Amino acid sequence: MTQIGSAASRHGSDAIVAAENEENEVQKSSMNFQANVMADESQVDVLIIGAGPAGSFLAFALGRAGISTRIVDKREVRIPAGHADGIQPRIIEVFQSYGIANRFLELAELVYADAFYNSSPNGGIRRTKLESTSLDSRFPFEATLSQAQIEGLLRSVMDEHGVHVEQPKIPISLTVSDDETELQSTDSHPVRVVLKRLIPDKEDHLSATSQASKDDTIEVVKAKYVVGADGAHSWVRKTLGIDMIGESTNYVWGAVDFVPETDFPDIRLTCAIHAQEGSCMLVPRENDMVRIYVQLEESKMDKAGRLDRSQFGAEDIIKIAQKLFYPYKITMPQKPDWWTAYIIGQRVASQFSVSNRAFIIGDACHTHSPKAGQGMNASMNDAHNLAWKLIYTLRQWAPSSLLNTYEFERHKFAQDLIDFDKVFATLYSTKPQPGDHTYSKFVQTCDAYSGFMSGCGIQYEASAIVDVKTSRQSLANKIIVGQRVPPGEILRTGDFRPYNVHDVLLSDTRFKIIIFSGDVNNPKQKAKLDAIAARLDQPEGFLQRYTPYGAPEDAVRIDTLDANVFAIPSRLRSHWSKAYFDGVSNCGRFGGNFYSGHGISDDGAIVVCRPDGYVGIVVALDELTAVEDYFAKFLSSSSQPLHS
Amino acid sequence: MTQIGSAASRHGSDAIVAAENEENEVQKSSMNFQANVMADESQVDVLIIGAGPAGSFLAFALGRAGISTRIVDKREVRIPAGHADGIQPRIIEVFQSYGIANRFLELAELVYADAFYNSSPNGGIRRTKLESTSLDSRFPFEATLSQAQIEGLLRSVMDEHGVHVEQPKIPISLTVSDDETELQSTDSHPVRVVLKRLIPDKEDHLSATSQASKDDTIEVVKAKYVVGADGAHSWVRKTLGIDMIGESTNYVWGAVDFVPETDFPDIRLTCAIHAQEGSCMLVPRENDMVRIYVQLEESKMDKAGRLDRSQFGAEDIIKIAQKLFYPYKITMPQKPDWWTAYIIGQRVASQFSVSNRAFIIGDACHTHSPKAGQGMNASMNDAHNLAWKLIYTLRQWAPSSLLNTYEFERHKFAQDLIDFDKVFATLYSTKPQPGDHTYSKFVQTCDAYSGFMSGCGIQYEASAIVDVKTSRQSLANKIIVGQRVPPGEILRTGDFRPYNVHDVLLSDTRFKIIIFSGDVNNPKQKAKLDAIAARLDQPEGFLQRYTPYGAPEDAVRIDTLDANVFAIPSRLRSHWSKAYFDGVSNCGRFGGNFYSGHGISDDGAIVVCRPDGYVGIVVALDELTAVEDYFAKFLSSSSQPLHS
Repeated sequence: MTQIGSAASRHGSDAIVAAENEENEVQKSSMNFQANVMADESQVDVLIIGAGPAGSFLAFALGRAGISTRIVDKREVRIPAGHADGIQPRIIEVFQSYGIANRFLELAELVYADAFYNSSPNGGIRRTKLESTSLDSRFPFEATLSQAQIEGLLRSVMDEHGVHVEQPKIPISLTVSDDETELQSTDSHPVRVVLKRLIPDKEDHLSATSQASKDDTIEVVKAKYVVGADGAHSWVRKTLGIDMIGESTNYVWGAVDFVPETDFPDIRLTCAIHAQEGSCMLVPRENDMVRIYVQLEESKMDKAGRLDRSQFGAEDIIKIAQKLFYPYKITMPQKPDWWTAYIIGQRVASQFSVSNRAFIIGDACHTHSPKAGQGMNASMNDAHNLAWKLIYTLRQWAPSSLLNTYEFERHKFAQDLIDFDKVFATLYSTKPQPGDHTYSKFVQTCDAYSGFMSGCGIQYEASAIVDVKTSRQSLANKIIVGQRVPPGEILRTGDFRPYNVHDVLLSDTRFKIIIFSGDVNNPKQKAKLDAIAARLDQPEGFLQRYTPYGAPEDAVRIDTLDANVFAIPSRLRSHWSKAYFDGVSNCGRFGGNFYSGHGISDDGAIVVCRPDGYVGIVVALDELTAVEDYFAKFLSSSSQPLHS
Repeated sequence: MTQIGSAASRHGSDAIVAAENEENEVQKSSMNFQANVMADESQVDVLIIGAGPAGSFLAFALGRAGISTRIVDKREVRIPAGHADGIQPRIIEVFQSYGIANRFLELAELVYADAFYNSSPNGGIRRTKLESTSLDSRFPFEATLSQAQIEGLLRSVMDEHGVHVEQPKIPISLTVSDDETELQSTDSHPVRVVLKRLIPDKEDHLSATSQASKDDTIEVVKAKYVVGADGAHSWVRKTLGIDMIGESTNYVWGAVDFVPETDFPDIRLTCAIHAQEGSCMLVPRENDMVRIYVQLEESKMDKAGRLDRSQFGAEDIIKIAQKLFYPYKITMPQKPDWWTAYIIGQRVASQFSVSNRAFIIGDACHTHSPKAGQGMNASMNDAHNLAWKLIYTLRQWAPSSLLNTYEFERHKFAQDLIDFDKVFATLYSTKPQPGDHTYSKFVQTCDAYSGFMSGCGIQYEASAIVDVKTSRQSLANKIIVGQRVPPGEILRTGDFRPYNVHDVLLSDTRFKIIIFSGDVNNPKQKAKLDAIAARLDQPEGFLQRYTPYGAPEDAVRIDTLDANVFAIPSRLRSHWSKAYFDGVSNCGRFGGNFYSGHGISDDGAIVVCRPDGYVGIVVALDELTAVEDYFAKFLSSSSQPLHS
């Protein structure tokens, strides 16, 4: 058995390795192991520790796919207010792919423009730039919604799939078997976690008790996989012995949520304000609230980086903001909804998984400045990336090596995020000096990183599931291998109903083979389609080799024909709803720009879209064998037994 | 006491007048009046009889406004399948105004194009026209959803407002007081209805029992208003002694819902098929189903107009369709989901209300051919029209004379509907002869009536609430007085967020004053706005006279300015979200066409939008007194006591 966690000590293969849960008062040293062994023991496929946005999203995605899932959280109830609030366009696209975007959009505040304010030659600030946000997205806006409401939404949709957050409950020990046979087995449960239900004491404080008489609070869970989504101070991460790489900055920031009284004209826009006296960021929020971030004096913090609340309050943040907003007035007539102060730390975990059985996601992997609004987005994208890979492995559609791509893709992203954050936070935290170019550098940075900030430009590097080398990128030069398929309007051939291509590339755990046919009235193109159709049913074709496992069964075809589904070979239209065309709808309001907008060649192309919406490979219509080779690299062929 | 219903007999002012409920076996003659008097007695503001689309919609609209409402239905459970299914664009707009369009759209099948098939010179049929549906709507499509699902949706949203359908329960007597003082009183309950709860017998048949020992099945409800939404054979209508004017046609039609196997290319479009052998209509439905209507031989019906089911089945309808579809093949591999046959009756009730205390809505008022897909739409629009008027009267915001406009507006509509239906049904039911022009007449008819069919062109005539005479229609020549405000995109001034104007004209029981300012940088226009702002707070201004009652308190302003809410007089922007402008959004995807698209003059205009979305009056910016006069005609001024 591998020892995990610096606090662990070896007790043999049946022993439980206890590790300190720093944020709850667990009496590690007095743990009664005998009593624990007698505690309830159960099995689950995936155990998730932490029900913030990352853990909740993962629980929802797994539960929706029918995966046996449990999720625990140490908090007694959900957080009521404050914390992260920025939701980027890409994660709204992801919500859409899971069918929950509308429910999100009904709750969120949407921001369609960013304003940039700079110091004016006449003193005070003036607006120097106004621009749209996120033009590359299907959702051309930023959204703000409190983390509390995001978690509420995710819990509600998770509940609909029978997964419920168990709280307050904490892990008190975690071991991953080091038996290779067990680790390689698809039916084994090599992860063992001891969970402890917390009981509020008389003062309603939570504590874990180690008294043997309360053994009903202890249970042992044997899991196929464990996922630590337990935040920046992750107990799972520490227990797994994973380090955080990076350091704290010297920048101290305060944030306050309140309903302002003001004559500032852009109070309902996201504003970056660079006054002579310092920098400030304004984010509009629900219920007429705004959030304001300002830089604080370092002296307000104690040595541990915590704010000295006896000497400081939300009013002090407002006072600083008032100076920066001049000549505009801004006041806080009522009490703030929430406020905080913090030092920016920029760190990435050294590894994101152990033995492909224990994973960390979200803030457990990366911490950074909140001002670019990336935190919750990066966390939920971690979950989105990991979910389908866990599902494929659990369904035995893919060998466990597929799970390697989680760390490969998301560690690189996290490092990029920290690098971006360093540039961004430095620019924000630097007072502009007369004659320097900080402000214009800031605007340039925002422009250069816009695809990164919106999430729509996230690029996964070449791997088994991102076949850059074989791809013929020129055949669809805006459907970039390793990026998400860009949105665009198409019409369903059978009934002219307009769809966004994202609506047929749902996160339904299936790969999608998009056949861009070109003009099927051209005999050359028609012949290629017929050849694809013929190949599909051959034993060596990918459909026969893999679809018993359900993976790439759902092919979506987009052709350029006018409204006759029968023009497509019947093998390629297993249902009338699988055929789409690139045309303008009769009413003139939709479509007609897909091929040109996506740079698709008249020769057509085959695009393989991963279950998470990212492009796996782009090849020519007569290169179906390249698609077969692509799947062969990471899918299990149907000669293996199907796990029910 | 006015005697109501042909079966009624006078028993003095405390007597209960029993009337036969023809569709349930109520033993009228043996009714024990003494027992009934001892039954439970309660009060309610509005009692609705019948929970089909009309009754359910009304119950939802009233419940949402906090009106004390009950609704009963004789059926034991909701209908499972079949019946009406066509939902027109206007009623989707109405759904949107109540915040339930998204929930509807998630369930419905949407049809973006109509195809017209005519007999081909080579025999069989061929497509001769393909056109978009409903370009005048915000929702440029027709939708189909079974009546069962529509009722399910309405029940679900009704439940959220605490109104629940009580079933199976029938009215067994209904009286409306003839005491003028009682009728004029705002606090009286001059409607008395005896309700009987039905109890399934051993064979699960429902029956009303008259045994005195089962008095718990009887209750007396005293209501301010009763609404009969109990269908074509309305017991309420008969009890009120209201006749149906009109007659049956000789056209016998059959309809069947099934999943077809076919090579017909437009199987997922709405198709009007005029073959040599007869006419047929095809409507795509949910779950790959279609509905087909064909004309049957009259001999299939008995003298009462009922189908002889021993000699006829769904297969016979399919056989007729197969001849009409030639050269295309269409078969019914599985059993049908539902089927029916019927004779078209075209009738309108002689009056829609009695003493402004008892009303009928929906099929109780009008019956007609189902093929133009109007039934459920007309019914729900009746409810939409009546709802706000009941609410205003109940809140004492308006005298009861406002209720006169319900019959005035909806009777005219029903008569127009029957007239249209006669033209439409005749064309559909006539076999084209060589050389005649039936088919081209049919297409012409569809074009001419498209605004009527979509519901977006419904025109209410001049009345107290539709001031055609004073209106200056030329100032906004596409915002027609008496029609619904056409949709169009605007941007919210504070945050550039795009809205459809319909999203700020919600069915929230309020009148909306839309001030189209023209260019507020033009001093002439600015002066007019300042004058409006100054007038608002004067005692004789409409805001002071009526807003204590909450009616026209929520003014929406659309100006042409770029993005500074402070350019508008502060009195006209009670909240930042009340100011909009007509501009193209930064991202270029929204807006910029409102003034031109709606024919709004550079001089601006004031448009008053009724709570149901229809235009009440259009005047110039310096004619605010005309708005005051408009409201004076039908609103109660605030000098009257406010009913809590």
